[in-house]
Amino acid sequence: MDDEHEDRTREHVEDSLEQVMGLIARHKLVESLVHKQDMPRHDLVESLVHKQNLVELTKKLDDLHPADVAYILEALPLEDRLLVWDLVKAERDGEILLEVSDAVRETLIEAMDNRELVAAAASLDTDEIADLAPDLPKDVVQELMKSLDHAKRAQVESSLSYDEESVGALMDYDFVTIRADVTLETALRYLRMLGDLPPHTDKLFVVERDGRLIGTLPLKRMLVHDPEAHVAAVMSDEPVTFHPSDEASDAAQAFERYDLVTAPVVDANDRLVGRLTVDVVLDFIRDESEADLLQAAGLREDEDLFTTVWKAAKNRWLWLGINLCTALFASRVVGAFEGSIEKLAALAALMPIVAGMGGNSGSQTLTLVVRGLALNLISKENSRRLMHKELGIALLNGLVWGSVMGVVTYGLYRDIPQAVPLAMVMAAAMLLNLLVSSMAGFWAPRLIDRLGHDPAFGAHVLLTFITDSMGFFIFLGLATVFLL
Amino acid sequence: MDDEHEDRTREHVEDSLEQVMGLIARHKLVESLVHKQDMPRHDLVESLVHKQNLVELTKKLDDLHPADVAYILEALPLEDRLLVWDLVKAERDGEILLEVSDAVRETLIEAMDNRELVAAAASLDTDEIADLAPDLPKDVVQELMKSLDHAKRAQVESSLSYDEESVGALMDYDFVTIRADVTLETALRYLRMLGDLPPHTDKLFVVERDGRLIGTLPLKRMLVHDPEAHVAAVMSDEPVTFHPSDEASDAAQAFERYDLVTAPVVDANDRLVGRLTVDVVLDFIRDESEADLLQAAGLREDEDLFTTVWKAAKNRWLWLGINLCTALFASRVVGAFEGSIEKLAALAALMPIVAGMGGNSGSQTLTLVVRGLALNLISKENSRRLMHKELGIALLNGLVWGSVMGVVTYGLYRDIPQAVPLAMVMAAAMLLNLLVSSMAGFWAPRLIDRLGHDPAFGAHVLLTFITDSMGFFIFLGLATVFLL
Repeated sequence: MDDEHEDRTREHVEDSLEQVMGLIARHKLVESLVHKQDMPRHDLVESLVHKQNLVELTKKLDDLHPADVAYILEALPLEDRLLVWDLVKAERDGEILLEVSDAVRETLIEAMDNRELVAAAASLDTDEIADLAPDLPKDVVQELMKSLDHAKRAQVESSLSYDEESVGALMDYDFVTIRADVTLETALRYLRMLGDLPPHTDKLFVVERDGRLIGTLPLKRMLVHDPEAHVAAVMSDEPVTFHPSDEASDAAQAFERYDLVTAPVVDANDRLVGRLTVDVVLDFIRDESEADLLQAAGLREDEDLFTTVWKAAKNRWLWLGINLCTALFASRVVGAFEGSIEKLAALAALMPIVAGMGGNSGSQTLTLVVRGLALNLISKENSRRLMHKELGIALLNGLVWGSVMGVVTYGLYRDIPQAVPLAMVMAAAMLLNLLVSSMAGFWAPRLIDRLGHDPAFGAHVLLTFITDSMGFFIFLGLATVFLL
Repeated sequence: MDDEHEDRTREHVEDSLEQVMGLIARHKLVESLVHKQDMPRHDLVESLVHKQNLVELTKKLDDLHPADVAYILEALPLEDRLLVWDLVKAERDGEILLEVSDAVRETLIEAMDNRELVAAAASLDTDEIADLAPDLPKDVVQELMKSLDHAKRAQVESSLSYDEESVGALMDYDFVTIRADVTLETALRYLRMLGDLPPHTDKLFVVERDGRLIGTLPLKRMLVHDPEAHVAAVMSDEPVTFHPSDEASDAAQAFERYDLVTAPVVDANDRLVGRLTVDVVLDFIRDESEADLLQAAGLREDEDLFTTVWKAAKNRWLWLGINLCTALFASRVVGAFEGSIEKLAALAALMPIVAGMGGNSGSQTLTLVVRGLALNLISKENSRRLMHKELGIALLNGLVWGSVMGVVTYGLYRDIPQAVPLAMVMAAAMLLNLLVSSMAGFWAPRLIDRLGHDPAFGAHVLLTFITDSMGFFIFLGLATVFLL
């Protein structure tokens, strides 16, 4: 994409969405009117109003930035989405497919035939083709690869060979290299000859004859230094570099920390192999944080807002199934104390409070630990301190909220003979379950992290499992021992 | 910051943290040894080992990028953190204060006297001073403002006058302007005269004599176009611009969509007032997504990992208090059915499953709706469709999981006389509560959004309140009517 961004703020985009929706509604109205009057299909297509509508809609779409078309496609129900998709100029298909979410991309790809897909993908850069390839039918990918020249095919294959969460999968091959022994004057002439620079270029990469990266030359410096100076004298010779196998999240943190716009990617021998840009990093960070939020609610992947009931259910069942199992286990814990509950039904009313408060306070600990792990703030040395702090908070919370609930319990059940011991059991159970849940919140993410999984996902289920089961067990156990 | 980033990947930073921790440990060991031998304090300070240690630590810190020092400060317990902070060169204090999280910044500022604070802040740009000002003591801010010249003071005041979540609060005043009627040659000479360009400069801002922005000139184009060409002929005349009052999150979305590095900020009369850069946008996006995660767990603000128990508890109490109230309400719902539970204690064991499944499935709906609202994907036109889809999923889930639980319930309680009706009540209650919770998940965030609050925070509490209370009510209510 070039720098020629037109003036489109979000208000503008939302206006566009509304206009598109209006045009679609009008289009449908015409179609349904015609349908009612049993006008032959042929006449309909010829009808002036109908044509005008579609022309207007097409024009509107042509004027929009690919990212804005993507936004409109996301916001439209499936049927309308495919109508709009049909009207988008074929040469923009590739760019737009890159911009939409995975779930919506799937619906668009389903609506295209192989020839269209090959054409759409062929218009893209090699790193973008690699982004798209996993979502394309196998035969489309094969045909696509055949259409590429040797160098490009190698780039696509190399991009595809890296793990999705690695720098290699995010990098592009769009950079300008220069030699260290030329003058800035020569370099400037070379750029003028190129005529255009890749998007986001803020620096040139300075390489040796064998491809080894020895420095970077920021455009800024080219502009302000004497043209007679040599690149070697002006370049930055210790740039931040990445390896293709580096974790993308580490690279993202480096971009944030060192305020980078682009950075070279080098192999083990310091040979330049690619380039990482801030726009890709930005998308990565946004995707990661969205994935965290979705996963926390047990949505396995991004879900098209207007997907079918069936697809959505499949996306959500794993989570509900796991939760049903943990809930069943907790239910059996309660079941073991059915005798006690029959004697004192108040226990049934109070037990969810003990479990719930444990879950809430444990998830506060858990959230801080997950964040600490993600930022690499938790080490062997400081982890004991952190644990003591969390235990201290749980103790304080247990004393405070336990006392509150003791008093409330007494107030609620002051008419039954066991009111005082019930209140004391309630207070003690709250305290104990808060201590248990702080330790569960502290250890669950670290355990899951050590097993190599994403703590943000499994840790919450594990925590709820522990706080519910233990909450019921502690409260009903104490009550059975001391009250009955 | 200049582009001279040295080669520091995350592994490197973590090594640094370990080295710093090692040096601190050694330092403490020496101090404690000396302390045990009752060596007078003066001798200690003079002792060679002691000195050497601190010199080594200081040198290590001086070599690190401010962002890396910030990372180390975050990872150290309070006492060690202040030791390190003392050794950091005073002229870097300001930059580092900007990089640390709010919670850690507070601890560092507490350890500094007013003179140090004024000096630290005075070394910063005006937009950075404005970022820091809310965390500084009032008299420090006053003294600081007095030390600034008129233009800078005006900039700080203007930055402070904007809402924290607006473009005005994020923009800086660090840009290079140029007139449209000069040649690129002249422009290049002007840049060479300036000698250095502000960080992230990827384009110059083209303004009229009265300060109105009429276009932007990407550095890339300056480099590749004929130097004889006029700025007016080469510039991009429809740049994406922002207003200071625009919401920062909208601007962040525009940066993502249009892959921007910098963008001009203009007032209502198109006069250039500031500049937005991608590094600030990146930090904003990261902060927002962290705040979302923290808020979801009821942490009111970012918490220093090593804060005191007391401070942490204050940060967490509001949430626990609110949850206690909702849990108490749900408990009273159960309390209303104590008679039924006394007769059939199995109800107590089964009721948490109905409430829990409602909560889980409702939070899936809620998460998608919150995301749709944040991305402005939900409009009047499509909201009905979305609601029908969610109801459809709830119906399907209710039938599936309700049947599963019906069978399981029968299996567990086949020995009691009410086994069959109990299983049917369970299945019906699951279905009904899943329908209720899907509507709660759909409407709660929209209601809170319309009331002008952040749906990510309050919506979850409201949802749990509804799914728990309704879950208990539906299940125990049906059981009372049909079983007893």
